[in-house]
This record gives sequence, structure tokens and C-alpha cells, in this order.
Amino acid sequence: MENKNIPYKIYLDEADMPQAWYNLRADMKNKPVPLLNPGTGKPMTAAELGGVFCDELVQQELDNDTPFIPIPEEIRGFYKMYRPSPLVRAYCLEKALNTPAKIYYKFEGNNTSGSHKLNSAIAQAYYAKKQGLKGVTTETGAGQWGTALSMACAYLGLDCKVFMVKVSYEQKPFRREVMRTYGASVTPSPSMETEVGRRILAEYPGTTGSLGCAISEAVEVATTNPGYRYVLGSVLNQVLLHQSVIGLETKAALDKYGVKPDIIIGCAGGGSNLGGLIAPFMGEKLRGEADYRFIAVEPASCPSFTRGVYAYDFCDTGKICPLAKMYTLGSGFIPSPNHAGGLRFHGMSSVLSQLYHDGYMEARAVEQTSVFEAAEQFARIEGILPAPESSHAIRAAIDEAVRCRETGEAKTILFGLTGTGYFDLTAYQAFNDGKMTDYIPTDEELAQSIATLPKVPGME
Amino acid sequence: MENKNIPYKIYLDEADMPQAWYNLRADMKNKPVPLLNPGTGKPMTAAELGGVFCDELVQQELDNDTPFIPIPEEIRGFYKMYRPSPLVRAYCLEKALNTPAKIYYKFEGNNTSGSHKLNSAIAQAYYAKKQGLKGVTTETGAGQWGTALSMACAYLGLDCKVFMVKVSYEQKPFRREVMRTYGASVTPSPSMETEVGRRILAEYPGTTGSLGCAISEAVEVATTNPGYRYVLGSVLNQVLLHQSVIGLETKAALDKYGVKPDIIIGCAGGGSNLGGLIAPFMGEKLRGEADYRFIAVEPASCPSFTRGVYAYDFCDTGKICPLAKMYTLGSGFIPSPNHAGGLRFHGMSSVLSQLYHDGYMEARAVEQTSVFEAAEQFARIEGILPAPESSHAIRAAIDEAVRCRETGEAKTILFGLTGTGYFDLTAYQAFNDGKMTDYIPTDEELAQSIATLPKVPGME
Repeated sequence: MENKNIPYKIYLDEADMPQAWYNLRADMKNKPVPLLNPGTGKPMTAAELGGVFCDELVQQELDNDTPFIPIPEEIRGFYKMYRPSPLVRAYCLEKALNTPAKIYYKFEGNNTSGSHKLNSAIAQAYYAKKQGLKGVTTETGAGQWGTALSMACAYLGLDCKVFMVKVSYEQKPFRREVMRTYGASVTPSPSMETEVGRRILAEYPGTTGSLGCAISEAVEVATTNPGYRYVLGSVLNQVLLHQSVIGLETKAALDKYGVKPDIIIGCAGGGSNLGGLIAPFMGEKLRGEADYRFIAVEPASCPSFTRGVYAYDFCDTGKICPLAKMYTLGSGFIPSPNHAGGLRFHGMSSVLSQLYHDGYMEARAVEQTSVFEAAEQFARIEGILPAPESSHAIRAAIDEAVRCRETGEAKTILFGLTGTGYFDLTAYQAFNDGKMTDYIPTDEELAQSIATLPKVPGME
Repeated sequence: MENKNIPYKIYLDEADMPQAWYNLRADMKNKPVPLLNPGTGKPMTAAELGGVFCDELVQQELDNDTPFIPIPEEIRGFYKMYRPSPLVRAYCLEKALNTPAKIYYKFEGNNTSGSHKLNSAIAQAYYAKKQGLKGVTTETGAGQWGTALSMACAYLGLDCKVFMVKVSYEQKPFRREVMRTYGASVTPSPSMETEVGRRILAEYPGTTGSLGCAISEAVEVATTNPGYRYVLGSVLNQVLLHQSVIGLETKAALDKYGVKPDIIIGCAGGGSNLGGLIAPFMGEKLRGEADYRFIAVEPASCPSFTRGVYAYDFCDTGKICPLAKMYTLGSGFIPSPNHAGGLRFHGMSSVLSQLYHDGYMEARAVEQTSVFEAAEQFARIEGILPAPESSHAIRAAIDEAVRCRETGEAKTILFGLTGTGYFDLTAYQAFNDGKMTDYIPTDEELAQSIATLPKVPGME
């Protein structure tokens, strides 16, 4: 029974915070298919993955069966510094839209990294520390993941080496300075510090870098320096596991007030936020205990769910990582540079891809000017300046709420507000100046990049 | 009796949020002396002030007697979007400092303006709207106040005209874009839009502006355009009144757990945060019900409490505003440009000045490199990147906690963490690069600027 006195913000008590992550894979009948070794076409073994990732994270990556994995006490202590995050009832937005819909959003931006990325960063850093490692390496583009990892490593006293795509390093000096303030070393990529970096610089002297290249450098440093491992902020099963804390808190907060959402919306790039937000709700749906509509919102400029294919592909442009089966545009796909927000990844979490393939979720693609219109409207009404990524979910939530106004249905809409836009003001400026444009790849462009899908040995 | 199970973050329930602001002046035996008309030397009347400020705000400005002033329902609704702000128990900092002290901070940075300024911005915008005005004008330097006012005006549908010091307008384009996203018009000052702006530009063609000049332009637009008034984010009695919500929430949260602070610390520029945080505690001290140590922390480069004089002075460099009696370095005092944080105001709230003069508070000045050392330490341990202004309070809180370690005393320390440093990364970069320096004005320099104090008619 829904309680009528729902506050603007619902905070769980510390005692009600999740003690374990929820592993959605345990409830999936069709499990996500395993990562493949691109050389042999065989599933990656724990030993193979252990050269790149920490041992305990490899276990989590491969565990399709354990439904709940306890959150270590140290991580719960760190979570208490910035969690529980508020579940907000968007009373002001509802009023402004004049909709009978009830809108809720889980806001993950109230921490210095500015997004939900911190939930997995502290987990991955913790297991590295526990394994007695010296440090971790990673890549960062826009910088949210790099910032989150820097914060986690500073807290644990772990060395943190971030390869930042050169163009971002130069254009986003403030992100870089946050990471430096947290003690991370930040290297513009490609760099002269790695073999792959030197090779790329020799071949393309003036290059401003790419995420694929930064991944290659970070992996090289992790695998050639004793005491280091590589960590990644999205796509992986382990990341979705850690991010389940978002959904678990959300569900506990809603349950407290007897609220059951009809529609659950999240933006989708690699899937870390969406997978985390929907986890416990999707679990109920998979177990046949409840039904929900799930909507993944992706940019029309990088539409892996809505226009991609479900196939094995490389996770990185550099083609050095294992193959994952996922909805993909081809690892050679490069979103138009006029795309301002994140969510630029060509592929998608294997877990979410399987669920989408099996018909458990919907997906829709939205164009960026309409996303920034929603962002501006939301900022003015709800007071939070949203990240461009998060604003994809806002766009869809507003659209659904407006539909409710038209049909008169008082649906309950829940969406994930993953972060803040304080470091995305160049994009806001383009929007404020009326200089933002949209870009939708043509069918021919997509066919070309999809044609670059790798041939998997034994599957030809 | 102190409860032992104190969570990392204490959030008040909505029902426990303050219903009224607390007017500290009502409990002061020695009231703050009135603003004077610089021409006549007589106290400013409500009618004189009404030409510049909204009527209801003039009443609040002049009201030295009413202890509690109800917070209008609309403002309480807005407060619910970003308040209550968390009162944080700094367990991690205590552990890192190995101190027996118990440290709490009230964190006001979890809103898009990034600081406590929003508490007064919404109040001032609300009364302007209620009076049927079209809009408000103001000046902004670093941009926190301008951002807060833009947010409040966007929410209420009020026109907002911000004069932004030209050098900030150019060097802090992101702050400007936040304001524009909230629909404010932002004009670099000095501008050709005002008489005073044109005069200054004619006299100093290449000038990059000053806060004093921006105030003059904002006041001119407010007083020459029907339906507009001028608003100000600090110093004024009304601002301290609105900011009392900080202290009231803090006290309610501490009372819930039976905690009584021994030392209460706040940074002090114009006094808005410090005055708001200490209000209900100082009220108890004034009424003889409890005792607390209050410490105002100011920059050594702009030391109005610790090295200024208690005298009538102009609040603005342009000398167009009324005279206020306060601790001041002289309205001609300009802090060294190497000073990175805020708190650059030459004077101080009249209320706080009177309390300091009467011995109810202490003050100390700290140098900026030591402030940024504290900021970095805090960021890494507590996970929040603090504003340079707030970090003055962090410096003093850490110093007091270390003193407790030395003496073995388990004191309870409370400080105000006014905001976040996301838009201050140029200063952090200077610190990270080891290029930050300190500056302390010489006695001769201070004597010179103090010699510019105005002669008050009838007081010579």
C-alpha cells in the first residue's frame, strides 16, 4: 500500500544499507555467454584473466551462480562516506509537466567523482589492495572513471596510474587536476611510456589519442609491471555486480514507502549504471515475482542496442582485449566528434545484451539536442545540473511522463540520475549558444563498421 | 547523554526541518549598530533602503527584535529539494589524524550552486517575486552567489541579471555557462550597459573590472529600471538570518544524538556562512544557557577580524552603498591577486563584528598554502573536494584536532564545510604544481588602506 507522505528525498538509514551485492546472472535462465580468447576462440580461463585483473575480481567476473556476494566491511565503510545516495521524488518536475505520473530518480552525483563510477572503483581498488598489489592502471576519456578510481586509491593508499586520452587531457584540465589532487599520476595518451604508445606516436605523430589506445597503454603497464593490475569502469560483469548497490538501495527505499515502479529507465553506454539500477527489479521479473518495463536509453549517434548486431566483438578499439558477445556497432565504430556526452562505447554489457536479446528490456535512441533540452529543463526545475549521459534518461522519463498526461495514467516512473555536469560545460555552452547539432549514422556507415566484426576461431 | 551509534551522515527528517529562521540579533544585548546614510550620517530608513532592496527584506534587515521569522512555505518547498544538508561525522579524518577529538561538519556543497549561498538566494528571490517585481540584479566574482541566484530565479520564473567581474567572466567560463543554463543574463563588468560602466571604461579602457565596480553597475540597473531590485549574498543582516537554517539544522541533528560541540569553526569572508552556522549556538551563549568556543577563520591575506579596525566603512569599493560599522581593512583594501580562494572582502558582517568586539568569538588568520594542504588532506580522506573558502575552516579544525591528540582531550569539534571546489581547479593546479605562494600584507599596507576610512558626518 503506497504511503502518501513521501518526502522529497528518501535516505536509507545506515542500518538498512545493502550488506551484499546482487548478482543478477544467478537468476538468468540464459546466462551471458563467456568471454573468449581471441586467439583460440575458447572461453577465457581464470588463469588467463588473472594476468590482467585481480584474482577475486576474476572470480566475480566468472561467477554466474551466486546470487548475493557480501560487500566487504571496508567497502561498506567507504560507501558510508557518500552513500546512501538520495532517492528523489521529483515533485517539482511532476508539477511543471502537469502529469499524473509519479517520478522518482536515484541520484548518484553527490560525490566528488560526480557519478556512480565510485561504487565499482572502491571495490576494484579494495581487492587490489587485499591481494597485496602496489597499484592499478586504467584509462579515462571524459574523466569520471579516472576521478573515481583516483579517489578510491587515495583512500586505500594504492598507486593509481591513469592514461587519459590526450585530447581530453588538454581540453579538460580540471578533471586532470582533480585526479592529481587525489594523488594519481595522469599521463596523456598516447605516451612515450609504453611500447604501444611509442609505436602509435611513430605512426601517427600528431594524434590526439583514443580510448582504445589508452586502454592498450594501461593494459601494457599493468601486465608488464609486477604488482599492478588493470581495472575497467563499465561493461564487465563484475562492474554490474558492484553497481547493483544502486538498485538495492533504490528498491529498499521504495519498499519502505510501498511504492512499486511501473517503468524503470536508465542511460546506457557500457551498461554499468543501467545494469546496477535495474538489477533487483529485473531479478524479480526473471523469477516471475513482479513485472516492470525497463527502458535503456542510448544516444542516436551511438545506437548499439537499437541498430547494432548481437555478436562476438572486441571490447576495445585496439583489439587486445578478450571477445565478448554483445550488441555492438563493431569495434571500429567511432561516434561523431560532435557528440558531446559520454555513452560513446560501440558495444554493451554482455549481461544486458542477453536480457535485451531475450526480450526483458526495451531500448530507445535519442538525439543530443533533445537530450540537452531535457537537461536544461530538469536543471531549472529540479535544481540539479545533470551530466549529459544522465540526461538521456531524463529525456525518456519526461517523454513517458508527458505520455501519462495525455492518457491520464498515473504511472510510477523511476530513472537513474547517474551524475552531475560540472565538467561538461563546454557542451552546455554549445547548447546555450544554439550551436549544438545532431548526428545519426547512416545505414551504410553502420554496415561498414559492423563488417569489421572479428572472425571467431571455430565459429566461422 | 551522547548516543554511541552515530552514523557517518545525519540527515534530519523533512518533518524536523526548521520552520522559522532564527534572528540572532534578538538575543544580543549590544545590537549591531545601524547602517548610515553616507551623506547625512543618519541611520538609513526603511524608505531609503526600499529603493534598493525588496520591502520585506528591508524589514528583515532592520528587525533587531523578533527572534524567529517564519520561513514561507514556498521557500521551505525549495529547501526540500536540496536540504536538509548532511551533518557528517568525520570518522575517517579522526582515524587518519589519530585524534581523540570527535569531528563533525555540516556540508552545504551538495547542490548545483556548490555552496550555502542558495539558502539566501531563494529567500531574496522569493520576496522579490512576492512583491510583484520583474527581476533582480546582482554582482558576482568567483560565481557561487551568481549561480545560486540564477537557480533561485529560474525556479520562480524571475529575471536575473548578473554583472560578473570581467576577469572572472573570461577566466571562469564554466561558471558563466551554469548561470546561462539557468537562464540568467551574465554581463562582463564593467560594461557599456550602465552609466557607471561606461564612465569606468572611458577612464580605464583596458580594465578587467572589480567587485566594487560590478556592485555599482548592478545597483544602477536595479534602481533605474522599474520592477527591479538589487540583492546581495553576504554581509547583510537579512543574509545571516536566512543562513541560520544551517545552524538550526545542525543543532537539531546534534541534539537528536545528544551531542554538544565544544568548538565551532567557520570560515569568514563577509560572514554569511559563519553567522548562519553559529546562530542558534551563539543564541544559547548570549542567553547564558550554554557555552561554546567560536572560531572565525580568515585568510592571512585579508585579515579583517585579526588586523582590521572596528569602524564605520563603505561595504563596496565604489563607495555607493550605506556605511556599516564593522571590522574592516578599509574599502580601498585589495587583497593580493595571488590569493586563490574567496573571502576577499575588506569588511565583515555587522552582527559578527559586534559579537567579536564583545568577546563572544575568537578569530584566527591562516595562510593559503596551509589551507590547500588541509584541503588536499581532507579530499583524500573524506572524499569531498572542498572549496578554498571552506578549507580555511578545515585547516583550523585539523589544527584543533591535532591539539587534542597532543593533550589527550576528546573535544567535539564542529565546522562548516560551505562548498565544493569544482570550479576552483586553477587554484588546485597551482598547488599541485608547487606554484602557490603566500602573501601577508605589511603593517604599512594595512595602515594605508585603513587610512581611507570615510569621515562620518556628525562623528568627526
